[in-house]
Parts: sequence; C-alpha cells; structure tokens
Amino acid sequence: MPELRQNLATGEWVIIADQRAKRPEEFRRPPNPRTAEVPDYTPTCPFCPGHEHQSEGLSQFPPEGPWLTRVVRNKFPALEPEGGPRVHRVHGVQRQMSGVGHHEVVIESPVHNQWPALQTTAQIQRVLQAFQDRGLALRHDGRVEQFVFFKNHGATAGTSLVHPHAQLIALPVVPTSHEQRIDSAWRYYDQHGECVHCRMLREELADGSRIVCENEHFVSFIPFAAFSPFHMWILPRQHRADFLQAPPEEVAALADVLRRAMRKLYFGLGDPDFNYVLHSAPVRRRAAGFLHWYLSLIPRVTQAAGFELGSGMYINTAVPEASARFLRGIEDPEGRPLGCHLPD
Amino acid sequence: MPELRQNLATGEWVIIADQRAKRPEEFRRPPNPRTAEVPDYTPTCPFCPGHEHQSEGLSQFPPEGPWLTRVVRNKFPALEPEGGPRVHRVHGVQRQMSGVGHHEVVIESPVHNQWPALQTTAQIQRVLQAFQDRGLALRHDGRVEQFVFFKNHGATAGTSLVHPHAQLIALPVVPTSHEQRIDSAWRYYDQHGECVHCRMLREELADGSRIVCENEHFVSFIPFAAFSPFHMWILPRQHRADFLQAPPEEVAALADVLRRAMRKLYFGLGDPDFNYVLHSAPVRRRAAGFLHWYLSLIPRVTQAAGFELGSGMYINTAVPEASARFLRGIEDPEGRPLGCHLPD
Repeated sequence: MPELRQNLATGEWVIIADQRAKRPEEFRRPPNPRTAEVPDYTPTCPFCPGHEHQSEGLSQFPPEGPWLTRVVRNKFPALEPEGGPRVHRVHGVQRQMSGVGHHEVVIESPVHNQWPALQTTAQIQRVLQAFQDRGLALRHDGRVEQFVFFKNHGATAGTSLVHPHAQLIALPVVPTSHEQRIDSAWRYYDQHGECVHCRMLREELADGSRIVCENEHFVSFIPFAAFSPFHMWILPRQHRADFLQAPPEEVAALADVLRRAMRKLYFGLGDPDFNYVLHSAPVRRRAAGFLHWYLSLIPRVTQAAGFELGSGMYINTAVPEASARFLRGIEDPEGRPLGCHLPD
Repeated sequence: MPELRQNLATGEWVIIADQRAKRPEEFRRPPNPRTAEVPDYTPTCPFCPGHEHQSEGLSQFPPEGPWLTRVVRNKFPALEPEGGPRVHRVHGVQRQMSGVGHHEVVIESPVHNQWPALQTTAQIQRVLQAFQDRGLALRHDGRVEQFVFFKNHGATAGTSLVHPHAQLIALPVVPTSHEQRIDSAWRYYDQHGECVHCRMLREELADGSRIVCENEHFVSFIPFAAFSPFHMWILPRQHRADFLQAPPEEVAALADVLRRAMRKLYFGLGDPDFNYVLHSAPVRRRAAGFLHWYLSLIPRVTQAAGFELGSGMYINTAVPEASARFLRGIEDPEGRPLGCHLPD
C-alpha cells in the first residue's frame, strides 16, 4: 500500500509508492567508465590551470602561486553585481526587479577529472570554506537577501562543464519557497518552543532506521519524507541558523560527512549524477531560534514528470528506510570506513 | 542586464538571464526521426489494441467495440482506491497518511505512434473529455481532495512508454504548492476585488507581446514570469475555478488551442519532450470567485539544476517576449493555420 508522508520542516507531502518501488540495487547505473575516460587536463577547458586569464578571479587557495581551489565570476552570470541599486517595478500584475546579485564559481581542483567523490576531505573542506569566505565578503552588499550554495554533478544534474566546480548565487530576493519554509519553521517553533530540525534530528537518532553516516558534528540521513530515492540531508547537531557562522571545526566535519555520503553514492550506485544545495538563513532576517542550516544531497536517479511539475509533490519510488539501509552497507573499496556507528 | 520577474498568480520569482539567453532557434532539436522510426503497432505494448486484457479498463470511447480512447487503471499506481478511509497519523514530527486515491491512464489513441501534435482536434478533445468524465465520477469519492491531470511526452519528460497516454491522479491532500497559490490568489482577490488570472489575461491581451495563439474561448501565452523557455499557459477567457464545470464547447475549444500550441512546438522546435498539466480548484473548497483553471504546457528544453532544486526559483535562459514571437511565427507545413489573430 502506498503512503503519503509530510516533511514537517518544509510542509511538503510526498508519495512513497511502494508498488512502484525498486530495490536499491536497481538504481545502480551500469559500471560507468566516465572517470577513467576523462583526461586529467584538457587544453580547451577554461577551468584547467594555465587558462586563468579566461575567467575573472575573485580568490584562490593558497592565496599566491599555483592554486588548489579558485573562485571566479561566472562568465554567463544569472545575476550581475554592476546593476546599480535593486529596483522593484510594478506595472499591473507584473512585478519586476533588476537582476542584481552575484554568481560565482568555485573551481574545486586544478585536476580536470577530480570527481568530488574522489577528492580528499581537505579538498572538499576548501570548497566549503570558499562558500563561507565568499558569503562573508558578499553579505556586506546591501542588495543581497539570500545565498544559494550548490553543486551540479553530471549532465542530468544540469551541468555541461566536466571540470569539478560548485557555485554560489547571491539573490536580491528571498525565494518564495524559502519564505514558506521559514513560515513553517516559525509556526513550529511558536507552538512547540523548539526548532523543528533539532526535534527531527533527535527523533532520527533515536529511531536510527534512516541514518546513513555521522560524525561528532553532523548526521546524514534520508528524511522520513524524502522526495526522491537516496535524497539525503546532512544536518549539524549544533543548532545554528546561519552557515556563515559555523566554526572551522564544523566546516571540516561537514567535509568529512559529505565526502563519505558522496562516496557511498559513487561506489554504491555507480557514480550517479547529483546536486547538493546548502540551505542557510536569509542574510537580513532574525531567524536564529527557529531556522537550522543544512545540506541537501540529491542523486538524480529518477526524472520529475508532469505530476511533479503540476503539483509540486513528488512520487518517491524508493522506501527511505530501505535506501538508508542500502547506503549504510556501502563500504569504501579502498578500505577506509564510510560507515556510521549505528548497528544495522 | 538580467532581470527578476514575479508571477503574481503563483507568487514565484524567476530570473530571466538574458546574458545566457539563446535565440529561440537554438533550442531547436536536431531533426528528429523518432516519429518515423516508431511503428504504429507493437506486439509488446500494453496499450496497443488486442492487449486490453493487460490493464483494468475503466471507460472507453466509443462505449462499445473497438475504441479510440480508453481509460485504464495504472498498473503501478502511485495511489490505490482500495486503501480504506484516509487515515492521518502523527508521531513526533512525522506526518503520514494512507496512500488512498486514484491513478488512471488515458490511452489517447489505438495507434502506437500517434504523437499528440499529430492528432486531430477531435482526438485531443476526447482525451480532455475523458479527464472531465473521470473527474466527475471520482469526485464522489469523499477521500479525494485534488485532481492532477497531466501528460508526459518523451523520456526527459518522465515517460518510458512511447504509446501516447495521459494520466490523472486523484490525491487525498491538497498539495502544499496548491495551497500557496490559493492563498496568493485569495489575497489578490481580497485586495483588488478581481481574479488575478482574469486581470492577467486582460493585460496580456492588451499588450500582445507574449500571446502565442487564441480562439473564441482560450488564449495561449507565455507568462511574463515564465519559468522555462516556451513555457505556455492556456487560460479560458471565461472565469471558472473548476475545469470539471467547463461546458462542452470549452472542452472542444481547449482541444483546438492545445493542438495548435503542441504543433508549434513540434514544427518549430523539432518535437521536444514536454509535459502539460491542467490546474483546477480543489474538489472540496469554495474558491469560485478567485481561482481560475488553466493548462500549463512545459517543453523540456532545459534541465533544472542545483539552484532550482535549492531555491525553488528558476533561471529562464529565454526572454518570454522573444519566445512568443518565435512561436507566433511557426506555421503548419500542411498549410493549416496555427496562428493567432494578432499582428506581429
């Protein structure tokens, strides 16, 4: 029998369609040679070393000389910093705003084929650190209302450039869907005197069946109402609304858990395309008590169709508990532990 | 300079990224032989004639004998009618509901390769009529709160079965995103004393730059804040919240405009994959004054990525006015007019 589940933190219902559900192994891609087939340097790639003049550099690590991580302006930006003040125009039912903001790219490695799951923890940490550093710099731009930090891996996840890179967009509005989550989180806090994410984390840890992996600072789990197969949330144990305020040891610990989660996908499902998104509080709101930042990791193993576009609801063809059990069991072929400390 | 636009009927902001914008012709697929390559009958297709025993038939047209349109239960349903009453369970932050409802398939034609854009108006009308007939029958099920009528055309639009078919899902909840639209529409009505869609239609007709085609009862246009290239709305001129109440002449007129819109995509862009969704009021709400049913037609010519998943906002790489101008110019190679009566 199918069931509907609601994510209380977002208000969204999903259908868990067990009749249509596949076993976790069935989502595995055919052994994928793309890592081996892609060279580690490409003369035409704008992100490979030696082509630095092709993009406008904003920062790099280390600060001088050859770089390991580099932040550049997006060459085809969705928003532009030079657009003057934010202007809001109203004409009948039309609402329009100048497209001011920032759209930057974090080049994760000088190595063209250094897939995220194959990166070291230190390398992943530098990417997250770049998000934080750029966010802290850009928050002084009074037009910025919301940061979206994200990564697209693979063509079906929306990227055409192979060279590993993540992105940040600084928006001049808080997106409607964020407003709704803020509202939903605020209502829960108002009624229960507790952050809904903190409560969820406590319940997930007590239950254990949806946990994927964890460390001292973070827990990675498949939400009770996950909207697609293997969709994971990585939640900090420490309540904090704003990722930009996370201390260095948390950024390092996030890199550790994110790396393990990405490796479980890579080795367990055959390098699926995926997106991750880091959700943090709006820049200019006091939401310290009831919002909780987190990272959402979404393998693109199914395709949203008309029903999803029309209803905003998702049909998940995998049962979250079964997906989590599968991912918990995935070990690193190189022998390093990916695991979590829970029995299964 | 990019700009942000808001759809006042949905509350959603989009980024119109003109820097990244392609010319409309650039979205054209390579000449696509798939219509010619697909046979008109396949012995293994469950929807081809002679295989009727493979699905549970619910209705057909004509009512007896060989059929032209047939409604069957989905063999792998997302929701099931036999699930007993709707039960809502609460456990900590978990909200769960039994997956009761209906999931039906409208087989659009006995002919395996009868692509929707190549169907006659009468044939498309029978599909829309089947939606209405099944909706009118199923609304008596007291567990049903919302219908979603939709179609997936092509693999990237989420279908694996080639044989042309549409679907309806009868949900036991009103999806969160619908609730938000209802809220948004109600607020507009409360403040302005007018349906936001009626106002939008009046403004679109006065402006003309985003109109694609129209007839006596319907207007097809690219919304001012279209979330993706060539995304069209087909709005009835007559204000009505509930599609199930639309009179026969409106259903026939919708078939005419929808057919012309699909043919413009087919001939103009080379048979892109697409979805359509028919948005109608919840079954058990009094929303007659402020909601307005419509059909949304979404060609899948771009890929949602991490930014869209994370923010719920879309980046549209086509300027709506340019996309509409392009589609207005697309004529039917068979010489039948697809057009609209507006000058260009």
